[in-house]
Amino acid sequence: MIDLTLIGIGSGSPGHLTREGAAAMAVADLILIPEKAAKSDLADLRRALVAEVLVTPPPMTSFPMPERRVENGYRQGVEEWHDAIAAQWEAVIRAHGAARPALLVWGDPSLYDSSLRIAARVARRLPLHLRVIPGITAVQALCAAHAIPLNDVAQPVTITTGRQLSDNGWPFGDRVVVMLDGDCAFQTLDPQGIDIWWGAFLGLPQQMLMHGPLAEIGPKIIEARARARAAHGWIMDTYLLARCALP
Amino acid sequence: MIDLTLIGIGSGSPGHLTREGAAAMAVADLILIPEKAAKSDLADLRRALVAEVLVTPPPMTSFPMPERRVENGYRQGVEEWHDAIAAQWEAVIRAHGAARPALLVWGDPSLYDSSLRIAARVARRLPLHLRVIPGITAVQALCAAHAIPLNDVAQPVTITTGRQLSDNGWPFGDRVVVMLDGDCAFQTLDPQGIDIWWGAFLGLPQQMLMHGPLAEIGPKIIEARARARAAHGWIMDTYLLARCALP
Repeated sequence: MIDLTLIGIGSGSPGHLTREGAAAMAVADLILIPEKAAKSDLADLRRALVAEVLVTPPPMTSFPMPERRVENGYRQGVEEWHDAIAAQWEAVIRAHGAARPALLVWGDPSLYDSSLRIAARVARRLPLHLRVIPGITAVQALCAAHAIPLNDVAQPVTITTGRQLSDNGWPFGDRVVVMLDGDCAFQTLDPQGIDIWWGAFLGLPQQMLMHGPLAEIGPKIIEARARARAAHGWIMDTYLLARCALP
Repeated sequence: MIDLTLIGIGSGSPGHLTREGAAAMAVADLILIPEKAAKSDLADLRRALVAEVLVTPPPMTSFPMPERRVENGYRQGVEEWHDAIAAQWEAVIRAHGAARPALLVWGDPSLYDSSLRIAARVARRLPLHLRVIPGITAVQALCAAHAIPLNDVAQPVTITTGRQLSDNGWPFGDRVVVMLDGDCAFQTLDPQGIDIWWGAFLGLPQQMLMHGPLAEIGPKIIEARARARAAHGWIMDTYLLARCALP
């Protein structure tokens, strides 16, 4: 039996790592590091985190992240992409004869992350026992950095994606968190009466925060985001939209 | 200036504490522990956590948690309750001359928690600099324990309360997380086609997990929940409802 652990590492700060996350890193016999051609400093961030947390880290091995294809539609592209990543995990685990491999997952493995679905594929081909360690999500890092509550008293909150927001408009309730938004989908909303709390590189030294009425702050976010993305080569950001005043 | 830190401590396990959470505990000069007459083992859990994490913990002081009154309606009752708790915080901070007081918050201070709203009240009467440290929520502990994703691929998720679910029915989308539900509000839904993933005491030794079709598992959860609540004197639980199959 192979003990595969998915370790949520939070949104970038080593301070987000939990005690059980650190302990799981320490007992792993292999840490798999995905390498994206375009985002190599994310791989470096993972390595730096392990080096900061552990005096004698387990072996780390990188594997090339397959590209997601778009020709056959979004859903089909995602399925094939997960298959291809699962094949990489399997190959690396087999090649190293790892008994306790681990992956470091940005944020939390449960929220807008593919690791659980990829692990399910690997489990069809290897005898796998899966353990999941939750991590601080960008949603939480955003609220903490702004010192704001996610929900209004006893009210619901919807977490959704940029694509959902542009395709289907405002989802539900008075507060919405938007993730995976590469195109500033808030532009597609009528900004009247909406406030935005935005954050990028949450928990990292280059953290950026902006908030205010969407009509006024939205354009400033678009500009600041483009500049920061150009400067760093990548950006991870998220935002909360509220249709009623925050306390 | 008084540096007040709200430290999210996760849903019960000392393993949920983050590195920045532990560091913030260590530099606090006073930790405020609320004491509820009916839930005193929750205060003990907080003390045990500090003792486990720190060799030389800062002074801890408990204060009696005021009761929430219901005569004047829910919203008014909550406002008065927060005022009363803020008065307790202020009195304790003044009495100890604390410069770096901290509070340990179950889960995350941003999600269905009053600490941010109480701190805002204290800030009207004391010169306060507020720092928020995110923590693992019960939502994440639930998903990790079941090893399930919170969202379906690229789909939204709504987090809501038991009261909202009974009053307004299914909120939005195909996945819903329900918190603050003392009355098993899932009973008010037509269970046809709904699956439930339930968890109580998440991260604690007495953790309970159940999942399956709501029609079949719902009644078993009601029974198990009542038994566990009677045995421990309290229960903290949450659940995910899905209208489509999880992968």
